[in-house]
Amino acid sequence: MRLRVDLLPREELVYPDVVLVVDVIRATTTAACFLEAGAEALYLVPSLEAARAFKDEDVVLAGEAGGLRPSGFDLGNSPREALEAPVGGKVVVMATTNGTKAAHLAGMTAKHVLLASLFNAHAAARKALELATEEVAILCAGKEGRVGLDDVYTAGVLAEYLGLMREVEPDDGARIALAVRRAHPDPLEALSLSAAALALKGVGLEADIPFCAQVAKSAQVPLLSGRVGEALIFKRG
Amino acid sequence: MRLRVDLLPREELVYPDVVLVVDVIRATTTAACFLEAGAEALYLVPSLEAARAFKDEDVVLAGEAGGLRPSGFDLGNSPREALEAPVGGKVVVMATTNGTKAAHLAGMTAKHVLLASLFNAHAAARKALELATEEVAILCAGKEGRVGLDDVYTAGVLAEYLGLMREVEPDDGARIALAVRRAHPDPLEALSLSAAALALKGVGLEADIPFCAQVAKSAQVPLLSGRVGEALIFKRG
Ligand SMILES: [Ca+2]
Ligand SMILES: [Ca+2]
Ligand SMILES: [Ca+2]
Repeated sequence: MRLRVDLLPREELVYPDVVLVVDVIRATTTAACFLEAGAEALYLVPSLEAARAFKDEDVVLAGEAGGLRPSGFDLGNSPREALEAPVGGKVVVMATTNGTKAAHLAGMTAKHVLLASLFNAHAAARKALELATEEVAILCAGKEGRVGLDDVYTAGVLAEYLGLMREVEPDDGARIALAVRRAHPDPLEALSLSAAALALKGVGLEADIPFCAQVAKSAQVPLLSGRVGEALIFKRG
Repeated sequence: MRLRVDLLPREELVYPDVVLVVDVIRATTTAACFLEAGAEALYLVPSLEAARAFKDEDVVLAGEAGGLRPSGFDLGNSPREALEAPVGGKVVVMATTNGTKAAHLAGMTAKHVLLASLFNAHAAARKALELATEEVAILCAGKEGRVGLDDVYTAGVLAEYLGLMREVEPDDGARIALAVRRAHPDPLEALSLSAAALALKGVGLEADIPFCAQVAKSAQVPLLSGRVGEALIFKRG
């Protein structure tokens, strides 16, 4: 099995098989939490405006502006909040820039797109191997075109699980991610050093960092299942 | 001093200050070797055709097609060969795709562009600090849009030297490069695992890999000094 890690989304990338999209702080962590809380489906959209277009009494809007809940939204993008949110049986519309962009790019060519984080790392790696025939790719969302230490670290944890479960041929990106993983035995240390974590601290959301640093706590793996307008629809994989 | 590492060239990148361009297997290693051998200037061009346009009795053409010397060229891109080449006082035109592309991109906005490798790592880091006022950036050339373990490893070695000489604020990319460096105490091991090294082995040029893995053997640092047509002109920094 080929194991490939792309450290940033790039328009020219082509995925023949399975892609694990990683935006660990916080979109893909929060996505697993909404499924844990019983959400029926997640609609990932690239902007607050796109989310508002889905506003309806049966729909929960989640998003952030500068890390915080935007006006007219039901929830922010905090995974702690998502885990406790009353979303049972509902559609959650998540407005999230980098994660949606990466998932959209992966979905243009891949057979299967999964959302992965540290929180669901083991389940996501297992599900990827279940679906893959030739390649598992991990696509790091990064932040506005800059590579994210948090996402590359998470890719390293996923790569490690994949390598334990199956013989893999890592590409250069996978070797880089594995090295980053090995340099930081403590996930919280790695995540805390990232620019994404610094941005959360800046808006008083630092409690989300240790939450996102929890490894393999959830078996929920969002799987791309369709599209409606600008939204990518994810359901339980 | 800000310390920034970009793991791949991207058109939208803007450099306010100094950039160290890294294409360790083999362009930036070979560039330092040509200066060691006494070359007056290096012209980096993006294609064999662009190089041929400079053909003249006082000019040495160096390039590769599938790793080997192209017809009509005086030399290949091997650093071992460059070190012994009779280029004293001459202009060497180097055709090299990924390195030239990265240097061209850096040169669009940066104040100073230097060519760095393991071979000149210490001198390149020192020169960068000498020239910089706010930021030292390291731009990894990669290979046709894919990140290279060899270049990111070299960025880590440069970042380590920079951090020893000056207090630096590393970005996420720099932290990733430093982690890759720390995961591989032996430079030859890191370089040997890269896709670039595998490609060299495929054409019987594996002896260049240990050469490129030598650290801090040269004080020659090519500095971008001008342009002529498609060529970027580098001279001793
Ligand atoms: Ca993020
Ligand atoms: Ca990130
Ligand atoms: Ca190269």
